[in-house]
Amino acid sequence: MGVEYDGTAYNGWQKQDMGIGIQTIIEDAISKIANCEINVVCAGRTDAGVHALGQVIHFDVFIDRSIYSWQTGVNSLLPPDINVNWAEVVSDQFHARFSALQRTYQYQINNRKVRSSLTRNRYWWVHQNIDESRMQKGAEILIGKHDFAAFRASSCQASTSEREIFALDIHRESDFITVTITANAFLQKMVRNIVGSLVELGQKERDIDWLKKVLESRDRKTGGITSPAHGLTLVGVKYPNEFNIPGFCLS
Amino acid sequence: MGVEYDGTAYNGWQKQDMGIGIQTIIEDAISKIANCEINVVCAGRTDAGVHALGQVIHFDVFIDRSIYSWQTGVNSLLPPDINVNWAEVVSDQFHARFSALQRTYQYQINNRKVRSSLTRNRYWWVHQNIDESRMQKGAEILIGKHDFAAFRASSCQASTSEREIFALDIHRESDFITVTITANAFLQKMVRNIVGSLVELGQKERDIDWLKKVLESRDRKTGGITSPAHGLTLVGVKYPNEFNIPGFCLS
Repeated sequence: MGVEYDGTAYNGWQKQDMGIGIQTIIEDAISKIANCEINVVCAGRTDAGVHALGQVIHFDVFIDRSIYSWQTGVNSLLPPDINVNWAEVVSDQFHARFSALQRTYQYQINNRKVRSSLTRNRYWWVHQNIDESRMQKGAEILIGKHDFAAFRASSCQASTSEREIFALDIHRESDFITVTITANAFLQKMVRNIVGSLVELGQKERDIDWLKKVLESRDRKTGGITSPAHGLTLVGVKYPNEFNIPGFCLS
Repeated sequence: MGVEYDGTAYNGWQKQDMGIGIQTIIEDAISKIANCEINVVCAGRTDAGVHALGQVIHFDVFIDRSIYSWQTGVNSLLPPDINVNWAEVVSDQFHARFSALQRTYQYQINNRKVRSSLTRNRYWWVHQNIDESRMQKGAEILIGKHDFAAFRASSCQASTSEREIFALDIHRESDFITVTITANAFLQKMVRNIVGSLVELGQKERDIDWLKKVLESRDRKTGGITSPAHGLTLVGVKYPNEFNIPGFCLS
């Protein structure tokens, strides 16, 4: 299933001791339609406040229902801030997390003097002027296969911190800056830590050499700030063509 | 002052017996900064659920504070879903409502099969296919000076229902249709009634002759549906240049 959500009201994707995880809400809805307890696996476990346009989940189920019933039935049981965009039957080989080749995230910044009510849950408001061309120069350093230990959260439990960034684009349209980043996979808080450091570059508080040293240090303590969660959206996940997983559209 | 708000949580602009009006929240904040009770006048009284990027208000005050204090002081007392974008001292001749030459509204539609969590408070979700070129043809009929009685709410108290629409543009980008409409002034629910009728045209449930007859009938009962409030945003108000009121930007 392709899942979209506004993460504002939730304590992130995963089941939580405190607060509500999006996973729990979706599992409850699917379990009702499936008539049995369902556990889902997602492509990317988003943090509290992070949104998704193209989260992908899979689950095993032995009941026979039409694709239409899965999609509309589950949607009828979901709150307005979570919805299923598509559902497909997939082969047993498919795994939402382990089959994924690439994840794409977008990070949105509102770069103007005054705060903005209408963008407050989807954009990081940065009132100091940002030179986005400096952000793009920093991005060029991060593209490729590197050890991103300097951009992982201290709580990150991944066994290795090597990841490959395929694309990292900075685009400005009037006050709005969008950072689009595609990698094979991401460490915990990796996008938010990268964006925080790139913004410090854009504000001319740091220079390119600093960013190079941060990357080489493999030490989170050398890096810039962590940008807030609410600017981040998981826009899509790419799988091998053989699985016929619907693509995503950036919008 | 230029005011932006997310209307989702409010019962419209005006002071209400039931629910909270945005006007009350703003007046309370300004009154604290002014140290006396302030009443504000707005350019366009938006309905419950309607948003604003460029609402304009004025008020009389006899205390001397810097523009910066007015703007940031008031913002510090406003909730996250309302903010002041700018403040200016204006001449005594200026009146936010009566000096206005033009108001511009945008109405946003998400035209796709499945509902969308991330756009739910800003876009009207229409799942039947809309041909936006038919909407544009309908728009051409409405542009100009007409008696818009067929598009006014039954509760509308305006003394005359003649208005002049200067521009009415329909723009599609993938699933998203934006209707941008500029007029000297609007009757109550006029934009939402126009959009509802244009969407019925776009869905091929009605034809151009029907829209002509609705306009000529001057009877609301002949018209199409009223589109929901949450798709509507007051984007800007135009005043005579002599008042030096900051312009607005559509984004």
